[in-house]
Amino acid sequence: MKKIGVAILGLGVVGGGAYRILTEHHGYFETTQHVDIDVVRVLETNSVRVEELGIPKELVASNMAEIAADPDINVVVECIGGTTVAREYALAALYAGKTVVSSNKELLAKYWHELERAAKQHNSGLYFEASCVGGVPIVRTLLDGVQSNKVTSMMGIINGTTNYILTKMTDEGAGYEEVLREAQRLGYAESDPDADVEGFDAAYKLSILASLAFHTKVPYTKVIREGITNVSADDIARGKALGYRLKLLAIARQSEAGVEVRVHPAFVKKDHPLASVSGTYNAVFLTGDSVGEVMLYGKGAGDLPTGSAVVSDILFAATHGEHKYSTFKNNAGADKEVKFVTDFRSAYYLRLTVTDKTGVLSKIAAVFGKKNISILELMQTPEEGNATLVIVTHETHEAAIKSAVQKLNASEIAKVETVLRVVS
Amino acid sequence: MKKIGVAILGLGVVGGGAYRILTEHHGYFETTQHVDIDVVRVLETNSVRVEELGIPKELVASNMAEIAADPDINVVVECIGGTTVAREYALAALYAGKTVVSSNKELLAKYWHELERAAKQHNSGLYFEASCVGGVPIVRTLLDGVQSNKVTSMMGIINGTTNYILTKMTDEGAGYEEVLREAQRLGYAESDPDADVEGFDAAYKLSILASLAFHTKVPYTKVIREGITNVSADDIARGKALGYRLKLLAIARQSEAGVEVRVHPAFVKKDHPLASVSGTYNAVFLTGDSVGEVMLYGKGAGDLPTGSAVVSDILFAATHGEHKYSTFKNNAGADKEVKFVTDFRSAYYLRLTVTDKTGVLSKIAAVFGKKNISILELMQTPEEGNATLVIVTHETHEAAIKSAVQKLNASEIAKVETVLRVVS
Repeated sequence: MKKIGVAILGLGVVGGGAYRILTEHHGYFETTQHVDIDVVRVLETNSVRVEELGIPKELVASNMAEIAADPDINVVVECIGGTTVAREYALAALYAGKTVVSSNKELLAKYWHELERAAKQHNSGLYFEASCVGGVPIVRTLLDGVQSNKVTSMMGIINGTTNYILTKMTDEGAGYEEVLREAQRLGYAESDPDADVEGFDAAYKLSILASLAFHTKVPYTKVIREGITNVSADDIARGKALGYRLKLLAIARQSEAGVEVRVHPAFVKKDHPLASVSGTYNAVFLTGDSVGEVMLYGKGAGDLPTGSAVVSDILFAATHGEHKYSTFKNNAGADKEVKFVTDFRSAYYLRLTVTDKTGVLSKIAAVFGKKNISILELMQTPEEGNATLVIVTHETHEAAIKSAVQKLNASEIAKVETVLRVVS
Repeated sequence: MKKIGVAILGLGVVGGGAYRILTEHHGYFETTQHVDIDVVRVLETNSVRVEELGIPKELVASNMAEIAADPDINVVVECIGGTTVAREYALAALYAGKTVVSSNKELLAKYWHELERAAKQHNSGLYFEASCVGGVPIVRTLLDGVQSNKVTSMMGIINGTTNYILTKMTDEGAGYEEVLREAQRLGYAESDPDADVEGFDAAYKLSILASLAFHTKVPYTKVIREGITNVSADDIARGKALGYRLKLLAIARQSEAGVEVRVHPAFVKKDHPLASVSGTYNAVFLTGDSVGEVMLYGKGAGDLPTGSAVVSDILFAATHGEHKYSTFKNNAGADKEVKFVTDFRSAYYLRLTVTDKTGVLSKIAAVFGKKNISILELMQTPEEGNATLVIVTHETHEAAIKSAVQKLNASEIAKVETVLRVVS
C-alpha cells in the first residue's frame, strides 16, 4: 500500500479540520483508497491549539526547514493564510519536491504563477480545491468535469460571511451594521470584516475560478469589485417586494469581446437557483457550451467542509499518477494578452427621490430614453413632500446607466439614492 | 503532444453529441488539454445518420474486430445501449487494451464487475460519467471530490423523463396519460416508456452511484423500485396544497443497519433544494460526514450534455496517468456480504375515502396510534356521501404503514386510495 506522509502548516480552522479527517479516517482511506496516510508533522506555534486537537507533542516541527528536509513527508498542507510566511513555506515545500495542498485563496490569487513555476521545476504537485468554496468540488469540476466545454459564464455566491449577512437582512429586515455585529459574535465574520464585506475574498476566488474556467490568466486586480457595506435594508425590502433577492455575486463571462469579471451585490429573481442559496451556503452556477447549465451547491466554509477539500486533494494526488498544472499561460505578465471588459451589460435597479410634481416622471423617462435604456418595472410610493421611485431597467451598458444617473443627479427633478445591478 | 485516437460505437443521441464535441473542439483541446484527439473510426449501420453528422464514409468501420485490432485507437466510446452487442464490444475493446468510455447505465449496472475484471487484466481504463445524470459530473465528484468523506446519504432526481412528466402534472394539473403522450411527442419519452416511468433507468443509475458513494457493491436488483404510472393528478394537487412537490426520487442511505436503496415517487417540501428541480433537469443531493450537504444540478440527458460527460472522461483518461478502478469488492457475489435495509423509515402521505359518520376519525386515529404512527397533518374534504381524508404522518417504518393500511382496508370505515412516501 502506498504510504503518504503529511505535514500540516497552521492549525487554524481548516488545518484543524484536515487533521481531524485524516486522523479519524485513516483506516477508511486504507480500505477505500488503498493509501496509508499519516500526519507526521505539524507546524504551529500555538501549543494550546495543538493540545486541543489532541496532537502528540512530538509531531510539532520546530521550523519549516525540518519539514522540507524530511524524506517521509510527501504532502505539505498550507493553511497558514496571508502571503508572507505562507508563500515562503509553500515555495520551500515545492522546491523540496513535495506536493503542496493549499486552502489559501489570497496566496493563489497573488502568487499562483510563482508557485506553479516552482512546482513544475521540481515535479511537485500543486492543489487548491480548499481555496475556493469550501467543500464544494468546484475546482475539480472545472479541471476534470466540464473541461470538455468552453465555459461561457459563471455566476456564484462564493463568500459565506456576506451571504449570511444579506440573508439575515432579507429575512428579518435588519440593518447592515446590526447583522454584521451578530455575525461577528457567531464567528461568521472576522473582527476586521473587510476581506469579506468589501469583496476581496470573493475577488480572489473568482480570479482563480475564472482562470480555470476560461483557460486564461485572470488576475484578481482585474475583478471589478464592490462590497456590501452600503447596502440598505430599505433597498433589500423594495427589491424583495418586486420578487428579487439581493446577493453578493461573483460573475465571470467570456465572449469575443473579452473576459468580464466582477464581484458586487446584485438582485436575482427569486425563482433563480441562486436565490435560494441561504446563510453560509455557497453555490456556483456555470454555463458550458455543451453541458448547458450546471450548479454546485454546498457549504463554503467551516473546519470539516474545507478540511474535506484539503483531504480530497491529498487523496487525488496520491491516487492519480502525474501532476497536472494549469491549462493556460501562467506567468506574471500573461494577462497583458487578455482583453478585459469593463463596460459590461446588466439590468439595473435604481431608487430615486423625486419631487412630487406633474411631468417629473416623463422627464425622468426621457433621460433613460435618450440613453436607450428601456424600463422593465416601475414602482412609485409617496414620501413626505417627495416620492420614492424604484426603477428596474432592461439590460443595458454600465456606462449608459452611469451617464443617466449623472444626468438625473445634475437635474433638479430627481436624486438617485441607489444603483444596484440586476441579473436578468 | 499526446495523440488520442477515438472510435465511437453507436451514433445515436449521445454518440452523435460526443462526435460533434470532439470534432468541433479539436483545436480547443490541443490548446487547453495538450492532447490531439481525433475520431478515427465509427461503428454505425445507419448510413443516413452517418451522413447527417457529416462523418466521412471512410471512417465507418465494418466490424468491431477492425476497431479492436487498430493500434491507432486508444479509446472506444460505447453508446450502443442494451447489454448484448454493447457488452460484447466493450469487452473486446478492453481485452485489446483500449480504454472504454460508456454512457450505458444498464450495461454498467448489470456487468460492471465483468467489465472491470477485463479492464484490470488488460490495464485498460473504464469510465462511465455519461451513464449517470448526463453532463452533471456526479461520478467524478464521488470518485475525486467527496472521496474524503463517508457519504451517509444521497437523494436524487436522476431521470429526466419522469421529472418532466411530474413537473407538467404539478404545474398544469394534467393527468399522467395525457402528459406522457405529450412527452413522447416532444421526444422526452420513448415510445415504450417503461424503462423510465417504471423506474428501471433510475434504479440502474442509483446502483452505480450508491456503489461509488458507499464503496460497496449495490446491485440494481436490490433497489426497491416503484414507478410513476399510478400517480394521480388529484394526489399531486392535494400534496401541492400542503406545500409538497411530487418527484421520482432515488434515495440511498448507509448506516450501521445496512444499505438502503430505493426509487419511488415521493413528496418533498417545496423549499427543499430538490423541489425546484424542474422539467428535464436533474440533481443529486448528498451528505458526507465532513463536507455536509452538497448538491449538483444540471441537465440529465441530451446529446451535448451527455456528450460533454463522454468527452470529459476521454480527456480525464488522456491527462491523468494510471487508471483507477472501483474502490470496493466488485465481483458478482460481493453484495452477499452487504446487509440491505428493506423496512426503511419514511414519512407518508395517505389519501383515504371515509364514510362520513360520527366517530370514524377517532377509529382511524386509533389504528395509527396502535402502530405508533403519529400524524403530522390532516385535511378532510367532503365528497358525495363520503369524505376524503388526507393524512401526512411523521417518520415511521414502512412495515408499520403497510400494516396500518391493511387494517384500515379490512375495516368498513375507510378505504386507503393512495400511499406515497414523504421526505421529512
